[in-house]
Amino acid sequence: LAEVPAPIALLTDFGARDAYAGVMKGVLLTRCPGAVLVDLAHEVPPRDVLTGALLLASAVPFFPTFTVFLAVVDPGVGSARRPLCIRSGHSLLVGPDNGLLWPAASRCGLPQVFHLDRPEYWLPECSATFHGRDVFAPVAALLASGRQPEELGTPVHDPVQLEIPSCTFLAGAAHGEVLLVDRFGNAVTNIRPSDVGHPASGSARLEVGGRAVLGPSSHYSAVPRGEFLFLPGSLGYYEIALNGGDAAASLDLQPGSRILLRVRK
Amino acid sequence: LAEVPAPIALLTDFGARDAYAGVMKGVLLTRCPGAVLVDLAHEVPPRDVLTGALLLASAVPFFPTFTVFLAVVDPGVGSARRPLCIRSGHSLLVGPDNGLLWPAASRCGLPQVFHLDRPEYWLPECSATFHGRDVFAPVAALLASGRQPEELGTPVHDPVQLEIPSCTFLAGAAHGEVLLVDRFGNAVTNIRPSDVGHPASGSARLEVGGRAVLGPSSHYSAVPRGEFLFLPGSLGYYEIALNGGDAAASLDLQPGSRILLRVRK
Amino acid sequence: LAEVPAPIALLTDFGARDAYAGVMKGVLLTRCPGAVLVDLAHEVPPRDVLTGALLLASAVPFFPTFTVFLAVVDPGVGSARRPLCIRSGHSLLVGPDNGLLWPAASRCGLPQVFHLDRPEYWLPECSATFHGRDVFAPVAALLASGRQPEELGTPVHDPVQLEIPSCTFLAGAAHGEVLLVDRFGNAVTNIRPSDVGHPASGSARLEVGGRAVLGPSSHYSAVPRGEFLFLPGSLGYYEIALNGGDAAASLDLQPGSRILLRVRK
Repeated sequence: LAEVPAPIALLTDFGARDAYAGVMKGVLLTRCPGAVLVDLAHEVPPRDVLTGALLLASAVPFFPTFTVFLAVVDPGVGSARRPLCIRSGHSLLVGPDNGLLWPAASRCGLPQVFHLDRPEYWLPECSATFHGRDVFAPVAALLASGRQPEELGTPVHDPVQLEIPSCTFLAGAAHGEVLLVDRFGNAVTNIRPSDVGHPASGSARLEVGGRAVLGPSSHYSAVPRGEFLFLPGSLGYYEIALNGGDAAASLDLQPGSRILLRVRK
Repeated sequence: LAEVPAPIALLTDFGARDAYAGVMKGVLLTRCPGAVLVDLAHEVPPRDVLTGALLLASAVPFFPTFTVFLAVVDPGVGSARRPLCIRSGHSLLVGPDNGLLWPAASRCGLPQVFHLDRPEYWLPECSATFHGRDVFAPVAALLASGRQPEELGTPVHDPVQLEIPSCTFLAGAAHGEVLLVDRFGNAVTNIRPSDVGHPASGSARLEVGGRAVLGPSSHYSAVPRGEFLFLPGSLGYYEIALNGGDAAASLDLQPGSRILLRVRK
Repeated sequence: LAEVPAPIALLTDFGARDAYAGVMKGVLLTRCPGAVLVDLAHEVPPRDVLTGALLLASAVPFFPTFTVFLAVVDPGVGSARRPLCIRSGHSLLVGPDNGLLWPAASRCGLPQVFHLDRPEYWLPECSATFHGRDVFAPVAALLASGRQPEELGTPVHDPVQLEIPSCTFLAGAAHGEVLLVDRFGNAVTNIRPSDVGHPASGSARLEVGGRAVLGPSSHYSAVPRGEFLFLPGSLGYYEIALNGGDAAASLDLQPGSRILLRVRK
């Protein structure tokens, strides 16, 4: 077993108003005393598996090599959907088999997937509504302590493979969409600078909500306050912003909103 | 004193927009370096002692045997209401004497109650508005370090005993109410499966807001999307849910909303 | 280097719905394994440097002597605004040079300011939108591990010096304003009891929003439920409250709302 437990990073749609996330931490500390618990995000919109998957995938590369990720956005809890552990590089991801773990797990090479099918490692009484507490947290605690997924589950080869929608190219333009809107109202798109040949500053035109924005810009305050811009964001995609304001509210953008990016020759 | 400090779990109505919870953690780390701090819930509705008490009681059983719970929902701060420490099993609960700690403390046998009446263990300057920082956190830090409540206060036998409202039985039906609504819009009732003889799936009828729901169901997705259901929830009570949606918003439920459960013979 | 890492306290306007704060914690744990991370506040209103500065200044005195404060409210990220580390007493503060750190740093004697101008200590790829992750977290991790600011930056003497607005005196009255509104609707003013000679209970009259409130009161429930009061609050200033309710919503107060305090002779 590990001499020092791995950190356990938690991502859920449980919010902060209930004690659901806190209760999972109680289970983790009970089964892995000394665990280092890290809140990654708990305000994923309820049942929004894609947003949870995106946030998880954006966070994993910045954590220590051996980290256990405990992710629960789980509208199918209690149904036949399987509980999973996925090994990806040195990291271990635990959560429901609904695609939530997939974009993060498939970032670095071929992931190994295990069906957590051994109730002897769960809490003695397993509810039908809270596998975060009863199944995933007990297993994550064991993994952080150094147990291997091979002991806790059975290899499978057919996990739900949620893919982040990619942009398409038509008539010289990249056609994409908004993937998520952050707290600041920045709208993260699914177009990467590399998708469009890393255009120079100001050499591209993004169309969104009937509006054209020239760019890319180098940083938020590169345009006057109150003006829209787009720039390479911290998730690796272009994002649409409004200097000093909320771009998504002003342009009525939400996940799925269509955008078009054209690079001038 | 303890070689390794006990975990300290925090539950408050302080929210995340202020630094009140964070400041308490500063005091805890100052007085108990190495303390393991766990956020249980900080978005208890302002001054809502009953909701705080319910969340605390639902969380305590899932924490390590020796844990210090620091709970502050304290509309009477600065008045004559007493600061308390309650020993319950191996756990210690610290907070105001307004019933907040009682449902959690009385779960496992007879609790021992101490009036925290020794200012020499508090911060040197005690405000009238923030005993979480000035009284409860310093005491919780000492308890986590292994000090005993007997050193920090005086035994008393008349704590405020808040009881979670229980359901009643009339004319063959259980009459209950909604205890709390969670982030997903699930409405937790005060009727336990054992109150009504563990009815088989589909053999009971719950009336709420002029509507009848057949059940219990086994899990959220056991009914089609968009349909209401009720099922045994993770707090041990039946909860009312809407597959894929927000039951409480759809049925206009809040704490106190009346419900009626009838089991078919 | 330090045998035990210093605690790292985080204050941001990143909110909980994104993973921005969580990702910073990943970087901190990667670069300083064993770091004790404390969330101070993450719901500072977006881009509101003054509120962030106030919360940080109110929290610093309650933390262990040697703590690293990582504060990010950073509308100018990516522009020429400098990344800073400030040493103040034994504490170290890391964040943008926009005044955010100043009220906290200038509380105890003359702060020493360092421009973090050595990219070799940052993440290898530095984005233009997330210096919290790419610049400030890596540096904070090194500082918590015992590295000195002298190694990581260059002394400068011209940081942005944000001052918390102070009250003025005219015709026998203190003229002040609301600094912040907390979750409970308490409106924290910028008038300290010492500014007006520590008036006895009930001997002063506060005018706000066309309304007069007698006080100061000793605690929230010193007036009947539903009545307004003002009292010395936990940040050291008078605050305006409503027993059992939300004073700021009832009186339409926000940061900047004018108040007037007159002490009766």
